[in-house]
Amino acid sequence: MTKMLRAQDIAAMLGTELKGNPEALISGIASLKNAKDTDASFLGNRKYQDQVESSKAAIFIVPEDFDGMVLDSKAYLISKCPDMDFTKLVMYFAPEPIKYAPGIHSSAVIAESAKIGENVHIGANVVIDDHAEIGANTVILPGCWIGAEVKIGAFGLIYGNVSIRERCTIGDRIIIHSGTTIGSDGFGFVPDPRGGLLKVPQVGIVEIHNDVEIGANCTIDRARFGKTIIGNFVKIDNLVHVAHNVCIGDCSLLIGQCGIAGSTEIGRGVIIAAQAGINGHITIGDGAKVAGTSAVVKSLPPGAVAVGTPAENQRDFIARLSLPKKVKKLEEQIKELKNQLKELSK
Amino acid sequence: MTKMLRAQDIAAMLGTELKGNPEALISGIASLKNAKDTDASFLGNRKYQDQVESSKAAIFIVPEDFDGMVLDSKAYLISKCPDMDFTKLVMYFAPEPIKYAPGIHSSAVIAESAKIGENVHIGANVVIDDHAEIGANTVILPGCWIGAEVKIGAFGLIYGNVSIRERCTIGDRIIIHSGTTIGSDGFGFVPDPRGGLLKVPQVGIVEIHNDVEIGANCTIDRARFGKTIIGNFVKIDNLVHVAHNVCIGDCSLLIGQCGIAGSTEIGRGVIIAAQAGINGHITIGDGAKVAGTSAVVKSLPPGAVAVGTPAENQRDFIARLSLPKKVKKLEEQIKELKNQLKELSK
Amino acid sequence: MTKMLRAQDIAAMLGTELKGNPEALISGIASLKNAKDTDASFLGNRKYQDQVESSKAAIFIVPEDFDGMVLDSKAYLISKCPDMDFTKLVMYFAPEPIKYAPGIHSSAVIAESAKIGENVHIGANVVIDDHAEIGANTVILPGCWIGAEVKIGAFGLIYGNVSIRERCTIGDRIIIHSGTTIGSDGFGFVPDPRGGLLKVPQVGIVEIHNDVEIGANCTIDRARFGKTIIGNFVKIDNLVHVAHNVCIGDCSLLIGQCGIAGSTEIGRGVIIAAQAGINGHITIGDGAKVAGTSAVVKSLPPGAVAVGTPAENQRDFIARLSLPKKVKKLEEQIKELKNQLKELSK
Repeated sequence: MTKMLRAQDIAAMLGTELKGNPEALISGIASLKNAKDTDASFLGNRKYQDQVESSKAAIFIVPEDFDGMVLDSKAYLISKCPDMDFTKLVMYFAPEPIKYAPGIHSSAVIAESAKIGENVHIGANVVIDDHAEIGANTVILPGCWIGAEVKIGAFGLIYGNVSIRERCTIGDRIIIHSGTTIGSDGFGFVPDPRGGLLKVPQVGIVEIHNDVEIGANCTIDRARFGKTIIGNFVKIDNLVHVAHNVCIGDCSLLIGQCGIAGSTEIGRGVIIAAQAGINGHITIGDGAKVAGTSAVVKSLPPGAVAVGTPAENQRDFIARLSLPKKVKKLEEQIKELKNQLKELSK
Repeated sequence: MTKMLRAQDIAAMLGTELKGNPEALISGIASLKNAKDTDASFLGNRKYQDQVESSKAAIFIVPEDFDGMVLDSKAYLISKCPDMDFTKLVMYFAPEPIKYAPGIHSSAVIAESAKIGENVHIGANVVIDDHAEIGANTVILPGCWIGAEVKIGAFGLIYGNVSIRERCTIGDRIIIHSGTTIGSDGFGFVPDPRGGLLKVPQVGIVEIHNDVEIGANCTIDRARFGKTIIGNFVKIDNLVHVAHNVCIGDCSLLIGQCGIAGSTEIGRGVIIAAQAGINGHITIGDGAKVAGTSAVVKSLPPGAVAVGTPAENQRDFIARLSLPKKVKKLEEQIKELKNQLKELSK
Repeated sequence: MTKMLRAQDIAAMLGTELKGNPEALISGIASLKNAKDTDASFLGNRKYQDQVESSKAAIFIVPEDFDGMVLDSKAYLISKCPDMDFTKLVMYFAPEPIKYAPGIHSSAVIAESAKIGENVHIGANVVIDDHAEIGANTVILPGCWIGAEVKIGAFGLIYGNVSIRERCTIGDRIIIHSGTTIGSDGFGFVPDPRGGLLKVPQVGIVEIHNDVEIGANCTIDRARFGKTIIGNFVKIDNLVHVAHNVCIGDCSLLIGQCGIAGSTEIGRGVIIAAQAGINGHITIGDGAKVAGTSAVVKSLPPGAVAVGTPAENQRDFIARLSLPKKVKKLEEQIKELKNQLKELSK
């Protein structure tokens, strides 16, 4: 049976003021652009309020400063945080989340010396090696390999086909998406006097703190010695590379396909945007922001904004972008000067 | 026993005109550069026809406008499409493809509620969760994890260690290479008033249409709500990242290590070259081309060509590249002007 | 029980000269910055010798040209190669490496026709297909899929969840980290006259020579025909993409997230730094170096250093970086010229 909701009931549920039609009825949610007349949608930023007028949605969750047209047939819910209120609607209509009941699948291969907490779910074909410890209520999905002496905290969720190498430690309430590798060797080689290259042993670990989420197909290398550290609440997108001995401060965000070279320290609340690269052995101060695809070669102070390759501050970056225009203007001025000079010398 | 072919028999097989020696004999194929005198090779583009003269190959498949030297000892097959005709030779000499006979390996773990079509091959240690559906004649190779309620069409080929999360839908005749993750959570967080970051639930799916090929170790995130869509005949190379709620039009190509940020719409027949990055919430028009390593920050109209970081049109990009030369010229002109001025003021 | 070492014993073990306190005692190792007063540390480069003075470490391994302050309470070991000598200390304090005893786990699925060498370790849930051959003393960890007719040499180490496709060949003493895919199809399509895109068959292989190390979540595509070749002692970092028919010479290094497009030849001893992209169908000469995030579009001669996008030599790159300064200077000079001209024309 299709779930339905009336505008006035949504307003009550969210505790928001309602303008327009309290009887407006929806059976789903969608973006402003894709919405049908049986959907609710939301406006995150007044800047885009034109899109509300052109949207077919029946109900809109809008910000407090919304001043667009209000149609009698539609409902407008005035929200302090449209995004979060919309999420509540999204969850109302979402299918039930998949449940992973406590238990160990018969095909899982778990070392006798491993310690498995209460209410843990271990999926099919998971392999857990000697002396590994899995905290209570953690879910480990099919095909994961958990190496020897790994410690994983409580209430974790590890999706299928994740690999975690020996001795790494992982905190509570972490989420790791499929295909990610934790604890692979750092990249370290020295020339071999006899020819070829010698591997520098990588005997440290990765230490992941609490409430961390790591995307799909990421790689986080173990330290050469000591620890590679991922702080509390750090969120890492897909295909991100964190090299050996990197340390990432609490609440920092690493967006898709960015990479951090070895031994670099990233402060708290830093944002490294997509495809950016951070050099090794440098420090990125608390709250710094690195624009997408930028390459940061030197340390950044707290709060810095870095853009470009090599990265510079926004003002210098924008000035650099405007060079073609400046050069054209110079060419014109020089032409003019030449003419004037010719006139003068006559 | 070594397979061998004479030039005149190849000409008959391909339906091409033959110049030179009809008895030229080969037992294999190779590139112009690597060919031995028992190989056939091909020239895709007349631009490189010097390489035919220096190649050791005994037989060449050449385009209709080929006008290089023709040696009596060698054979030249005049082809409308040398690349495709060469592929036929490649296939003649290729080893038999590996066959995956219908059947379910005894080590596979398949939920009772899953529906498995006719003639499906399910490899060792594959895990298929509740209510998943696998279409007829599809092949799923070892170590894959197919989540609950996933639907996969007919005649698909999914290589080993692929992860597909719950509820995603996949069309007919798709190929997914090893290590790829489909349906991981989109990257969405909001500051938690109590401190840290709150996860924005990602309850949508990935919907992959027909005849799609996805390379190795890619990540395609599920939508926050609604769908991330990969259109018909889309071809995706390795290590590509497609974020939540992205929509990719039919026949578009995403080349190695490129990334598309959230909610962006890519049109039909678009080419995103290697390592390029496409910003979120923008639109790339049909037939647009983005050069490798470019960063597209604004929407592109149909047919646009975008180059650089931030991306601009080719003319502006080339003008920007020539800036050092222009500036040098300006420096010289100013020096000259200064001298003239000095002369004049004497 | 905690291991401890005195400075004079370390000096004897390493064969180094000792300055300062021969009785200085340590129970661990750390970087200069993180060291406690019970740690040894090392100085790789005299440039950073200030960090020795501010470090809490009790024992320092320093280079022969070290001329920093020597405290009576601490020990300074004068080393020809501080990095390698420090590695010996690291290994002394490192936990025992995880042992993988010879044997085949009962859950592994191994084709009857596969040939498994002596003293091989095959972990849980590994799948090895028909006619594959695994050399003596090689270790294959949980969840790997080894395709049909693959050949792997002796003394190899393949971490969990690696996928190796049919017919690829791999030499002796190789290391492959988790999540990597070897032998996926190259990316080749041609327009289908009936609409859509046709796949160009990829029937070649990947041939990996001896002493190669490949990082986590890399992708190395099989050749369209013939071979993709990875030479002896090549070391590849994480998330690197090597396309079809690429050939990489001995002892070359490919750093994190770089990518090499199809049919390119990389010489011996080449360094491709992080996130760099190398165009297809070009040649990179022996010993060339490509800076991080650079995009190389044309062939490079041996020994070249390439920087930027598109890559140029260091001098041109640095000149380009200085353009804003040069343009500003030009603007000032033109202003001055204008003023002079105005004066003159009065």
